[in-house]
Amino acid sequence: MNHFISPQDVPDLNQLITGGIVAKRNPFADKQLGENKTIGLLFFNSSLRTRLSTQKAAQNLGMNVIVLNVSQDSWGLEMEEGVVMNGANAEHVKEAAAVIGQYCDIIGVRSFAKLQDRDADYSELVFQQFRKYAGVPIVNLESATRHPLQSLADCITIEEFKVKARPKVVLTWLPHFKALPQAVANSFCEWMNGMDVELVVTHPEGYDLAPEFLGKAEVLHDQNKALEGADFVYGKNWSSYTSYGQVLVNDPAWMMTEEKMARTDNGKFMHCLPVRRNVKVTDAVLDSPRALVIEQAANREWAAQAVLKEILLGMQE
Amino acid sequence: MNHFISPQDVPDLNQLITGGIVAKRNPFADKQLGENKTIGLLFFNSSLRTRLSTQKAAQNLGMNVIVLNVSQDSWGLEMEEGVVMNGANAEHVKEAAAVIGQYCDIIGVRSFAKLQDRDADYSELVFQQFRKYAGVPIVNLESATRHPLQSLADCITIEEFKVKARPKVVLTWLPHFKALPQAVANSFCEWMNGMDVELVVTHPEGYDLAPEFLGKAEVLHDQNKALEGADFVYGKNWSSYTSYGQVLVNDPAWMMTEEKMARTDNGKFMHCLPVRRNVKVTDAVLDSPRALVIEQAANREWAAQAVLKEILLGMQE
Amino acid sequence: MNHFISPQDVPDLNQLITGGIVAKRNPFADKQLGENKTIGLLFFNSSLRTRLSTQKAAQNLGMNVIVLNVSQDSWGLEMEEGVVMNGANAEHVKEAAAVIGQYCDIIGVRSFAKLQDRDADYSELVFQQFRKYAGVPIVNLESATRHPLQSLADCITIEEFKVKARPKVVLTWLPHFKALPQAVANSFCEWMNGMDVELVVTHPEGYDLAPEFLGKAEVLHDQNKALEGADFVYGKNWSSYTSYGQVLVNDPAWMMTEEKMARTDNGKFMHCLPVRRNVKVTDAVLDSPRALVIEQAANREWAAQAVLKEILLGMQE
Repeated sequence: MNHFISPQDVPDLNQLITGGIVAKRNPFADKQLGENKTIGLLFFNSSLRTRLSTQKAAQNLGMNVIVLNVSQDSWGLEMEEGVVMNGANAEHVKEAAAVIGQYCDIIGVRSFAKLQDRDADYSELVFQQFRKYAGVPIVNLESATRHPLQSLADCITIEEFKVKARPKVVLTWLPHFKALPQAVANSFCEWMNGMDVELVVTHPEGYDLAPEFLGKAEVLHDQNKALEGADFVYGKNWSSYTSYGQVLVNDPAWMMTEEKMARTDNGKFMHCLPVRRNVKVTDAVLDSPRALVIEQAANREWAAQAVLKEILLGMQE
Repeated sequence: MNHFISPQDVPDLNQLITGGIVAKRNPFADKQLGENKTIGLLFFNSSLRTRLSTQKAAQNLGMNVIVLNVSQDSWGLEMEEGVVMNGANAEHVKEAAAVIGQYCDIIGVRSFAKLQDRDADYSELVFQQFRKYAGVPIVNLESATRHPLQSLADCITIEEFKVKARPKVVLTWLPHFKALPQAVANSFCEWMNGMDVELVVTHPEGYDLAPEFLGKAEVLHDQNKALEGADFVYGKNWSSYTSYGQVLVNDPAWMMTEEKMARTDNGKFMHCLPVRRNVKVTDAVLDSPRALVIEQAANREWAAQAVLKEILLGMQE
Repeated sequence: MNHFISPQDVPDLNQLITGGIVAKRNPFADKQLGENKTIGLLFFNSSLRTRLSTQKAAQNLGMNVIVLNVSQDSWGLEMEEGVVMNGANAEHVKEAAAVIGQYCDIIGVRSFAKLQDRDADYSELVFQQFRKYAGVPIVNLESATRHPLQSLADCITIEEFKVKARPKVVLTWLPHFKALPQAVANSFCEWMNGMDVELVVTHPEGYDLAPEFLGKAEVLHDQNKALEGADFVYGKNWSSYTSYGQVLVNDPAWMMTEEKMARTDNGKFMHCLPVRRNVKVTDAVLDSPRALVIEQAANREWAAQAVLKEILLGMQE
């Protein structure tokens, strides 16, 4: 494996899931693999889980880690080609990516959707440019449209907790007053489409996800109906894709509660975190044994470690 | 030892002091102890000495270090339970602490007093919550009411420089135009109460420290009288505890000077730093051989190393 | 070698250039040298290349690295002596430098010119103070008037790419709407004066560099004439030294283009980065094989490694 930007970069999804489970059992078994290798982690946006779990995973593999909070620590980066750079951005990604690629063996990048211009966000320009100019493998630490390290951790978690060969997995929209990206929801659908699950997505009218991410998922606008018999309920808010970046609905009736969870087949509740308690989901659900949110977060370390290991192995070929 | 939040967590104060002196003599003797262990350092506030000395101590013990400047790097954290999270804080400490505890073997936290609400500050909610939810040992890098790593470094420094079996130690309030927390003063009294010293505290009217921290110390409002025969003069400004968070006095007559130090028994001057020169204490005092402020700061490394070593040993049991 | 603040600290420039080339061939050969040594990197300003390349170089040598973004992470530092510290700066460099020197074996400092007061900037007070009070070697990560790690990387790059025994090197001013420091231009001249090159500096009237940096360089105000027969064209913008910190000219006619480069003797284009494309230099030049900007940036790692190695060797004596 070279890059890890989208599932198209992954030759074998199941191998990565297994890799995560293996890393969890024996975190330091590959500590020689990353010796004298450096990963640079570039954050254009806030991060807690991704920041810590990726550092930890890299250190488990014996790598050195350099963290760069781009806007605080360094120069604003111009992503567009051919422009006259007389604005706020002092450096072009052509130089920045190539330079970072001189010092780092792998580069992780986090750059959220700006939610102003759908075509711009969905073109994933930042990742296109880093892939093109860095000259080293790029790891997606959450892009405008995807969060694959989260999705891999979610796959690992479902593998660990499923009690049926083909569980029913329901992705449900949850209310929130702010406009959030579609990245986690997109990515979750994209990865679930590659697993042996029954995938149902439920959301209010106007919150359809992009078809290329939704794949073969069934869509229902009746949340209660969608939850029936669910083994896993994956909660997430996202802003509208069709009315791009808008908050069309902020209806507390969509909040996840114990009453709703009772409709499931002893279903587990999942969320990528951070989660606003009693806005998206009640304390009762999060504080119950149904909630797998900490297990998911813990699996972020093993997801990152499986990905970095595959990339390091790819370098030896 | 499990946590290091307050002296109540410390089974044996003298063992820690000795541990610091031992670490100073041979900093790398325990480099195997922290192998494959990670400490996460969470800063809600600025830090120089604590940030550097704790990183250094952890690295001396062979640990990996991950630093998180919470407000810059990550999400605002909600500390109160049961609230509807529709405000500025995007993540609850219940999740954040538990998640960080998945990646880190030890968590250090710095969170200053806000000086708005005494009950809130003195409840030490941030540390209560991290202790409750992180699932791993918590180290106090300065809380609303205490700075125990500083106090331990101060104890080590007094042990090193004392020339009498039972020295006279004077904690004197110094003037400052800004409202500062009581944490260092509280903690210093609390730790001095556990050592064999004669403790005198001197401050203007209205600056009484909380009785539970003051302990058996003698209080004098006459600074000159307090200084007579002192072996150690520990200077610090703090805002009022009784008129909570207020600056009642900013009288330069309380500034420490060579003339005042002349009243001591060849006394040493101590301060936790940062110190505003010629506001709290004159250049002449700080630039004289009396000043132990750099020695104190240097001992922060050994204090942190002694604490981390005890916690790491506790994990092996 | 003890400090690396200016070329006056360097016993043998050629040895450092050779050291950089040797490090590039075998980056991990001296990994034992920095064992149990810590470098602290203090940034008062933004940094990409310096931040990453110095971390990387230190890790190649087996050192631990602690990064401090002074204004974000810590306290404002007072640099002047004898002042009453009742302003914004909470800590004096006397304490800060001495304290950091307790924890770090080497300290790197970046502190740009403020461009308000020429005497203040050119006195290099920040570096004077760190040199005086830290008690450990200081490395210049770009000061008000110099950027010697950049210059050393530039020397290495010229050594690698020169095709004549005594190449013609032209430093040309480039247009920019913002006022930038003279540090890179100063330092480049200062280091070129120590190498066997023909050095020509070209800039509009009013942009003369300080004579002590310019040295034996020839100065021309006709850019086209200066470029004739050049082997290396080093582009850089700087604000006026004589009308201190002012932007006197922002004439796009000074931008570097392919047409101008055609006047050289198959000359290479160099720039320290970041560079504003199509403001200082066209895309066509930067995207051509003439451009050595990535090679220069890559050599920053080896320049830093050569410097740190010499300092570490100096500690063993």
